[in-house]
Amino acid sequence: MSKIYITDTTLRDGSHTVSHKFSPEDVKKIASSLDAAGIDIIEVGHGDGLTGSTINYGFSPYNDFELVRAAASVVKNSKLAVLLIPGIGTVEDLERAQDCGANAVRVATHVTEADVAAQHVRAAKKMGLFTVGFLMMAHMASVERVLEEAKKFESYGADIVYCTDSAGAMLPVDVRDKISTLVQNLSIPVGHHSHNNLGLAIGNSLAAIESGATYIDGSLSGLGAGSGNTSTDTLVAVMKKMNYDINADLYKTMDASTNALIPVLESKGLKTNTNLDAMILGYAGCYSSFLLHSRRAAERFNVDVRDIIIELGNRKAVGGQEDWIIEVASDLSKLKNK
Amino acid sequence: MSKIYITDTTLRDGSHTVSHKFSPEDVKKIASSLDAAGIDIIEVGHGDGLTGSTINYGFSPYNDFELVRAAASVVKNSKLAVLLIPGIGTVEDLERAQDCGANAVRVATHVTEADVAAQHVRAAKKMGLFTVGFLMMAHMASVERVLEEAKKFESYGADIVYCTDSAGAMLPVDVRDKISTLVQNLSIPVGHHSHNNLGLAIGNSLAAIESGATYIDGSLSGLGAGSGNTSTDTLVAVMKKMNYDINADLYKTMDASTNALIPVLESKGLKTNTNLDAMILGYAGCYSSFLLHSRRAAERFNVDVRDIIIELGNRKAVGGQEDWIIEVASDLSKLKNK
Repeated sequence: MSKIYITDTTLRDGSHTVSHKFSPEDVKKIASSLDAAGIDIIEVGHGDGLTGSTINYGFSPYNDFELVRAAASVVKNSKLAVLLIPGIGTVEDLERAQDCGANAVRVATHVTEADVAAQHVRAAKKMGLFTVGFLMMAHMASVERVLEEAKKFESYGADIVYCTDSAGAMLPVDVRDKISTLVQNLSIPVGHHSHNNLGLAIGNSLAAIESGATYIDGSLSGLGAGSGNTSTDTLVAVMKKMNYDINADLYKTMDASTNALIPVLESKGLKTNTNLDAMILGYAGCYSSFLLHSRRAAERFNVDVRDIIIELGNRKAVGGQEDWIIEVASDLSKLKNK
Repeated sequence: MSKIYITDTTLRDGSHTVSHKFSPEDVKKIASSLDAAGIDIIEVGHGDGLTGSTINYGFSPYNDFELVRAAASVVKNSKLAVLLIPGIGTVEDLERAQDCGANAVRVATHVTEADVAAQHVRAAKKMGLFTVGFLMMAHMASVERVLEEAKKFESYGADIVYCTDSAGAMLPVDVRDKISTLVQNLSIPVGHHSHNNLGLAIGNSLAAIESGATYIDGSLSGLGAGSGNTSTDTLVAVMKKMNYDINADLYKTMDASTNALIPVLESKGLKTNTNLDAMILGYAGCYSSFLLHSRRAAERFNVDVRDIIIELGNRKAVGGQEDWIIEVASDLSKLKNK
């Protein structure tokens, strides 16, 4: 089974949600958590890409280059990507982003307009950047047209190409058709980016992977405009549950939401709709009535509540077997202190 | 293509979220909106079923029978269902619920314990109720075991049987395996009930339908404990977009959330995470930047903003074509006043 690579776009697509007000300090906090969690690619910058901070797209108090520099100062293993929309950003901007520490770029165009990206992709490759062709609003074009445009990106030298559901408008059947056609007809890997407008972000991401996509996007807690992006936390949980080969660590990804993103949002008077307790219960297949007692036992035995919940799921505990919680917590504590 | 029937459980499973405090007036407001929206079955009562109001399951200030009576006083076309968990509720309770106006029952057991429901299903059928066998925590049993238990429900005389993902723990592959096995081996229709813990409620509902399920559950705005149930609003939108044959009306279902559920929740200091604006943008495949101007145009031309958004999607409007909005609104207004 192919390895699946995750790009987290909290600090780029999620930036719309905070009106492009992630500060360099915010970026450091979130990017270092994502890096620690084993996320493969971290995208940083204005929601509309390099130098998107304008009256048209929303002013940011920080320019893209200081944000990239902040991320680069903390990221050790992940690739650090910027978004470049030809017409908004330029090759010069990209060079400057590279000077600040970016080593990857997603060159994004409307799904029918890959042509405008030819020089940008070629320049990016010449600069030695990991280069992604990013076809936005992919729901608006036919399978054949998406393939035609993707082939252009391939011919310009892109390392991978994305089928991007910018409006959250694609159905699983559409994702399967487009991704499988791209996978069958391109020699470079294929990626998918979802939004959750129709509640299908995770479902479509799985459909994409099942159809051969090996790059998938998410954002912490699903941060993003409208219904948000695919939640990176949930994506990692589901992919682990399905035994996909990924680099990301589940707990550390959840911690990136809990300990980095959420405090940053709170400092701006914002919050997420995410419920990681509910997620881990689903991941474990455990009754929600076990949560409160498991929390107490976790504290008493100094173990991670998530380990308790997952072990209760493994033991197939059902309602009425709440007495198992103490036993599980005690066992975990002994294992930990061995 | 088979007709797909929707059961809305806002007033039963969603009742957990309001600590079982839906009043008879709340029930009237929400049930009448669901009925007007063409929802096939409306489930009403304590979250843990008939007479669930106890210290164990959470007290309700209202008993199930007054809630059923309230719903029955306004529902004209939908079936009106109660949940009966053998061991909590009894056949006598069911008779009383029928006297109050219920004409359907879901008899629910743990996935491995259909036996305990034999007398309840037989009694329900004898009473002339539409009778559903409801196998909870279906993720905990093998495909073979789920089939074995479902066959018991069938043998007792149940009209349909549900594979219920109570913990939101099922993956699409698991849903496909179980539902297709049930569909192939039973002579009665099969239903599916999802929770959104892993972000898969809509994706799994579609997987169930693709595997032959013809009954699907939801709740308005996805109301429900933890990550909530499948959103009925989104379910209807996605099923319409996929051209499934359903009775429900999309706008009226959305209106049931907006005009009935949300005001009721607000009166209790609660709110939902739902974003129906984002949903309709995804449904239409329309840029989110069109929303604000479409709202203004809808007001000016006295047309439904959703019609504008959907028509912009049909015309494949892209960013920069915001001038189309006035044209579309004006066209819709002329059509309306013809």
